[in-house]
Amino acid sequence: MTAGGPVFDVEPWAVRVRQLDLGAIAQSESIFALANGHVGLRGTLDEGEPRSVPGTYLNGFFEERPYSHAEVGYGFPASGQTLVNVTDGKIIRLIAGDSPLDLRYGEVHAHEQCLDFRTGILSRRTDWTSPSGRSVRVSSQRLVSFTRRSIAAISYEVEPLDGDLDIAIQSDLLVAEPGHNGDAHDPRGMAAIGASLEPQSAFGQGTEAALVHRTKRSGLRVAVGADHLVSTPGRADTSMVVNDNLARLTVATRVPRGERVRLVKYLAYGWSHRRSTAALRDQVEGALATARLAGWEGLAAEQSAALEEFWSNADVEIDGDPELQQAVRFALFHTLQAALRAQGRAIPAKGLTGPGYDGHTFWDAETFVLPVLTYTAPRAARDALGWRHSTLPLARERAETLGQQGAAFPWRTIRGEECSGYWPAGTAAFHINADIADAVARYVAATDDAEFDASTGLELLVETARLWTSLGHFDGEGGFRIHGVTGPDEYTAVVDDNAYTNLMAQRNLREAAAVCERRPEAAAAFGVDPEELKAWRLAADKVVVPYDEHLGVHNQSQGFTEHAEWDFAATTAEHYPLLLTHPYFEIYRKQVIKQADLVLALHLRGDAFTAAEKLRNFAYYEARTVRDSSLSAATQGVVAAEVGYLDLAYAYWRETALTDLRDLHRNIGHGLHIASMAGAWSMAVAGCGGMRDHDGRLSFAPRLPPALRRLSFRLGFRGRCLRVEVLPDEARYRLLGGEPLELTHHGETLTVAAGKEATRPIPPLPHLDPVTQPLGREPDGYAAGQPSQPGRTRPDS
Amino acid sequence: MTAGGPVFDVEPWAVRVRQLDLGAIAQSESIFALANGHVGLRGTLDEGEPRSVPGTYLNGFFEERPYSHAEVGYGFPASGQTLVNVTDGKIIRLIAGDSPLDLRYGEVHAHEQCLDFRTGILSRRTDWTSPSGRSVRVSSQRLVSFTRRSIAAISYEVEPLDGDLDIAIQSDLLVAEPGHNGDAHDPRGMAAIGASLEPQSAFGQGTEAALVHRTKRSGLRVAVGADHLVSTPGRADTSMVVNDNLARLTVATRVPRGERVRLVKYLAYGWSHRRSTAALRDQVEGALATARLAGWEGLAAEQSAALEEFWSNADVEIDGDPELQQAVRFALFHTLQAALRAQGRAIPAKGLTGPGYDGHTFWDAETFVLPVLTYTAPRAARDALGWRHSTLPLARERAETLGQQGAAFPWRTIRGEECSGYWPAGTAAFHINADIADAVARYVAATDDAEFDASTGLELLVETARLWTSLGHFDGEGGFRIHGVTGPDEYTAVVDDNAYTNLMAQRNLREAAAVCERRPEAAAAFGVDPEELKAWRLAADKVVVPYDEHLGVHNQSQGFTEHAEWDFAATTAEHYPLLLTHPYFEIYRKQVIKQADLVLALHLRGDAFTAAEKLRNFAYYEARTVRDSSLSAATQGVVAAEVGYLDLAYAYWRETALTDLRDLHRNIGHGLHIASMAGAWSMAVAGCGGMRDHDGRLSFAPRLPPALRRLSFRLGFRGRCLRVEVLPDEARYRLLGGEPLELTHHGETLTVAAGKEATRPIPPLPHLDPVTQPLGREPDGYAAGQPSQPGRTRPDS
Repeated sequence: MTAGGPVFDVEPWAVRVRQLDLGAIAQSESIFALANGHVGLRGTLDEGEPRSVPGTYLNGFFEERPYSHAEVGYGFPASGQTLVNVTDGKIIRLIAGDSPLDLRYGEVHAHEQCLDFRTGILSRRTDWTSPSGRSVRVSSQRLVSFTRRSIAAISYEVEPLDGDLDIAIQSDLLVAEPGHNGDAHDPRGMAAIGASLEPQSAFGQGTEAALVHRTKRSGLRVAVGADHLVSTPGRADTSMVVNDNLARLTVATRVPRGERVRLVKYLAYGWSHRRSTAALRDQVEGALATARLAGWEGLAAEQSAALEEFWSNADVEIDGDPELQQAVRFALFHTLQAALRAQGRAIPAKGLTGPGYDGHTFWDAETFVLPVLTYTAPRAARDALGWRHSTLPLARERAETLGQQGAAFPWRTIRGEECSGYWPAGTAAFHINADIADAVARYVAATDDAEFDASTGLELLVETARLWTSLGHFDGEGGFRIHGVTGPDEYTAVVDDNAYTNLMAQRNLREAAAVCERRPEAAAAFGVDPEELKAWRLAADKVVVPYDEHLGVHNQSQGFTEHAEWDFAATTAEHYPLLLTHPYFEIYRKQVIKQADLVLALHLRGDAFTAAEKLRNFAYYEARTVRDSSLSAATQGVVAAEVGYLDLAYAYWRETALTDLRDLHRNIGHGLHIASMAGAWSMAVAGCGGMRDHDGRLSFAPRLPPALRRLSFRLGFRGRCLRVEVLPDEARYRLLGGEPLELTHHGETLTVAAGKEATRPIPPLPHLDPVTQPLGREPDGYAAGQPSQPGRTRPDS
Repeated sequence: MTAGGPVFDVEPWAVRVRQLDLGAIAQSESIFALANGHVGLRGTLDEGEPRSVPGTYLNGFFEERPYSHAEVGYGFPASGQTLVNVTDGKIIRLIAGDSPLDLRYGEVHAHEQCLDFRTGILSRRTDWTSPSGRSVRVSSQRLVSFTRRSIAAISYEVEPLDGDLDIAIQSDLLVAEPGHNGDAHDPRGMAAIGASLEPQSAFGQGTEAALVHRTKRSGLRVAVGADHLVSTPGRADTSMVVNDNLARLTVATRVPRGERVRLVKYLAYGWSHRRSTAALRDQVEGALATARLAGWEGLAAEQSAALEEFWSNADVEIDGDPELQQAVRFALFHTLQAALRAQGRAIPAKGLTGPGYDGHTFWDAETFVLPVLTYTAPRAARDALGWRHSTLPLARERAETLGQQGAAFPWRTIRGEECSGYWPAGTAAFHINADIADAVARYVAATDDAEFDASTGLELLVETARLWTSLGHFDGEGGFRIHGVTGPDEYTAVVDDNAYTNLMAQRNLREAAAVCERRPEAAAAFGVDPEELKAWRLAADKVVVPYDEHLGVHNQSQGFTEHAEWDFAATTAEHYPLLLTHPYFEIYRKQVIKQADLVLALHLRGDAFTAAEKLRNFAYYEARTVRDSSLSAATQGVVAAEVGYLDLAYAYWRETALTDLRDLHRNIGHGLHIASMAGAWSMAVAGCGGMRDHDGRLSFAPRLPPALRRLSFRLGFRGRCLRVEVLPDEARYRLLGGEPLELTHHGETLTVAAGKEATRPIPPLPHLDPVTQPLGREPDGYAAGQPSQPGRTRPDS
């Protein structure tokens, strides 16, 4: 793997660039994206250009895109959903003397952009001399409020550096020209859609303006409002121009040398498929009024306070690798941004940082992101599951279309309809339903949220369990088999008895039975009778997990270990990702694995394997996994840590944490990999901390990679906050308040009481044979067989 | 299955309707289509309307259609090819008095259309009274010449029935308005393409005219020319109008009662991707000149002579079922029409009878149609394989794209490029390559065509063998396995070790080795060395054919017999074909079979199974085959006959032979099922005659179904014509000239010498347990367990 993108300073609580790299604009826009789960602003320069993908996104706001299939089939979706780049409120243009500020012209003396994880503010400073020879300093701060869901704000200052200067500041609300946003040959990109926003209403008065638009096909309305506060040492002329697709406030003023003009811009966004144009416009103007009341400083203070609370429950501290420390906090910050205020909407694969994957959500929300949220921001986890629950009617309808019982949730979607245009790697990946069930069970166990358990949780578990009993069948020997489905590994599709799917379905069935036994009245009200419970238990008990007796490893799916091996020796760097250079048919029929599949089962269903099985399975699949998915490194790392390959685990941790900061997959221009970032937390907690939550109990088996001196992390669990500190030879458990908590440390049960630290030694590692990866597919910066040292020279840094 | 379409008289040598059924226009147009493999005219009424799909097709003449994939994948075709409805030369309109002849108006007193299998002429007679009250008789005859590839001709006569009548006859060359030609929700239909013919040249003088057009995207040119001969008792005014898309000759004349006016229209078609507009126009006008010289009577005489020769080598006689007798000859006639003069072009699935399947050719050309042609019109078989050979460069390129060696022929195409838009039921069906090899081997064995064997044949066998060695791999026990491919059964896709594919690949590898050993110089010139031969032999010897020990049957593919059973009890008539009412994922994962797959292996690779295996396998798969493909009945029937279910075989024979005459699949409006019609011959020869040609030797095991009194058929073999007569208790073999021929009769070797009939008794049948079909999927008109009687009441007749 190779790295790209801008180079950031290494510091513990921020990401900062100190130079302008016009070739890395797209990556910067993603890295510096601000979002709160509802509104997302890419980190475009204030002046709007130069730019790459200048997106502004509202969670759930999409346009429909009719699908045309070269050969149509029954049940193929007739249309897809594509995230819309809505009215851009970020733009603040500057005319300095007679030159527009544009960093492609004139001379840039200093340029800095910095995203601070504790303030939640993106700041920017540029010293620039115009082609006419006038010098200015532009400083701005931008936030998307965690406390006020619809609000964003920008504080923008200009200071002349070489004498009095006439300047004009133009603040826009602008509907973007439609543009092509992806690579048409890369299925991971975004579809090109034409202009999709039709004007509904435009308003402007004084310093305030609002535009309302409607999508052509999906019929959704979006409103954006802006208000401004101008502070200038002298007189300022302001004027407002409004038309269908533009509202522009212009401020003209003369600024003496050494003084500054400051514009604070408040933005409010709202969208609805129900509310009228007038109601939406009122909604954003009302939000603006309260934002004005708080003022920039008030909004900034709220933002810091919200983050302080988050970090106090979620921070991960790492001694010994400052890069990793920064990357893990960056990852947690963006995970939070993707989810915190989604409230009834999905968590997209890219959060709201870019248009990649059409803005769709996938299984990674439940499998990779929700565990982090469950233990660090449980309300956001609850909201995300609430969104799934709200789509149950669509999922039931989809199940019926597919000839199944219960609910079949979509592989990819924005609103809830299946949008997958390629069913073998879409509809067939039924494991998403068990992944949702797994997230439900984890959330309930970690929070004791009884109300959720008896309603949302129960319904999700029951309807997904019903799907499994209809999808599976009993074979001649009484085994419960699930045929013709696709597991997590997208380089193997439409197979029988995918081990991961079968084991996750087993958990799904058991959790559904458990909640119905725990909540008999709710279960009865939902139509579950004892016969159904019995059927779930029976299917779960009889689930077949394929095993290759000859090789002594579990089979990813029936027949997998009998497939031809991939010719890794003939596969060079430019062939990866394989899906862009090889046909599916060739990839599917060979033992080449895109991403952890059986190995993910070793993690999430570790209770179904012995330690010896885990070791053998890990080694077998490690040698065949090319990691063409950003979802894989963290899982490989978590299991590597469990079976004892600590250097390897550490390398995977670095890779998953640095996936976006180093642009390891060379595609962050279209948005960040939220699940990979969630994986950076999982590597700390489940990897080096060895945390497992099988059956709703917490267990730990911490081991520190040799390269690190110390690791500590925090977890919320049933209203308590547990802090775990891992040192080379011992682990320390401390409960920050609440009732005592029972947990296990390397298999030993202990009870941790508030305020008392429990310290336990870490047992030594057994001897292990080396494992290998496919040629050239070692984790970034890792040479097989050599212990990794933090700070040693990395080929890509 | 239910029947539809027009009702035809039962007669041995023709298909005739005696009434006008406006609701069955589409079916009539297909049934009465005339073609010679190069030019095809659907059986539209002369006057052009009423009509359904008024097609005129030239083999290989297509427009490109860009594909848009909802989710694109590497190697997906970027565009498809769609047969173009070219300039319509069939139209002859009549103005009788002041009324245009249009059978939707006025009164039809008599109407007859008749296709004669011995003259090859479509005749028509209509007695009609116009809305104004004038009565005329219109008689026409139409032929598409078997002897002159580019020529069609129409003889058109009008006779007033109630007094002198002023009439105008308008003869058109007309470019059709683009129309929608299929059901967008049925993958078996035809894509809608817009207007694709751009005018290049238009010419008209006297009674002669020519139009040249070019397709927009594929850049092919088509020229059509017409000339006319008018015979009228009185004076005739003629005039010619020509513009870009129309050339129209108008003849105005007064015809006395009892007399007639006659127009003979000669048509010539040509197309090219290379030749200029001028050259093409000259080409069709030259062809017209020689057609004029022959005259209508000359063309008709040539046509009869050509057919007389064909029937003398190919006729099948059946005593005891006149309907079946008619249907089998109809089928042979259309099989001949699809192929005879294709010369360097494909044989499309619908011949040139309609736009279904976009006019593409599939594996059924080689597997179902070529065996018939090989034994009845070997030159056409040679030409068809020559077309495949001419596309070798494209097939090599495709293999490279797919990461394979050798050649990968397209699943569906017109010119040679892969046009499949759904790879699991397209590209993955690699068996087409072995099917081509099988057709090559059969042709060579049946003809001793040494020149073909050393060139076209060798190259096709070698390049397909190379494909198999790269597609397959050796497993841990040394078995040769072919994974991730789709067999003939399109309700099971992308599987490991499809038995049919593996066995046909085995034959392919062995035939390639054999031809290279037979023609060492040609093989060496083609780059085959002894190591490669050895590798082919080894792979062939080690091919794995999956077998279920528990059930005692061969497995259609690995794991198939472990799939869930389909719920046939819950599947009613309106659910069929299942592909239109169930998602692929559900169909693929269960034991439901669209069409003979393992059972086709029992036929074509019968040498690889014991008689007991055939019986058990047949019973197992018969119970799970729904026959949603018209390719299946003949194969099920051939094997039913072999294992001894003669009533069942007879029912399948009737079904396959009547598929089109009864419109059993309710889709002949878009063209006939050429392969199903070829199956009507196979049922006679391979079914009731028990003919097999494993290893290039002829064997027979004839048995007459109880419903029949006698069957006889003829075969060409190595320059000789063999006639086989099957009676209830004995079979008679007679060689019509040539060297003595060795064959086997029910396992007994005998030598038949010219002019001497060899008679052998037919051994009695063993006792058999009944077999079953899925509920409601018995062959048309067959009740399971009851012997079928010809002539007994059939629900659909």
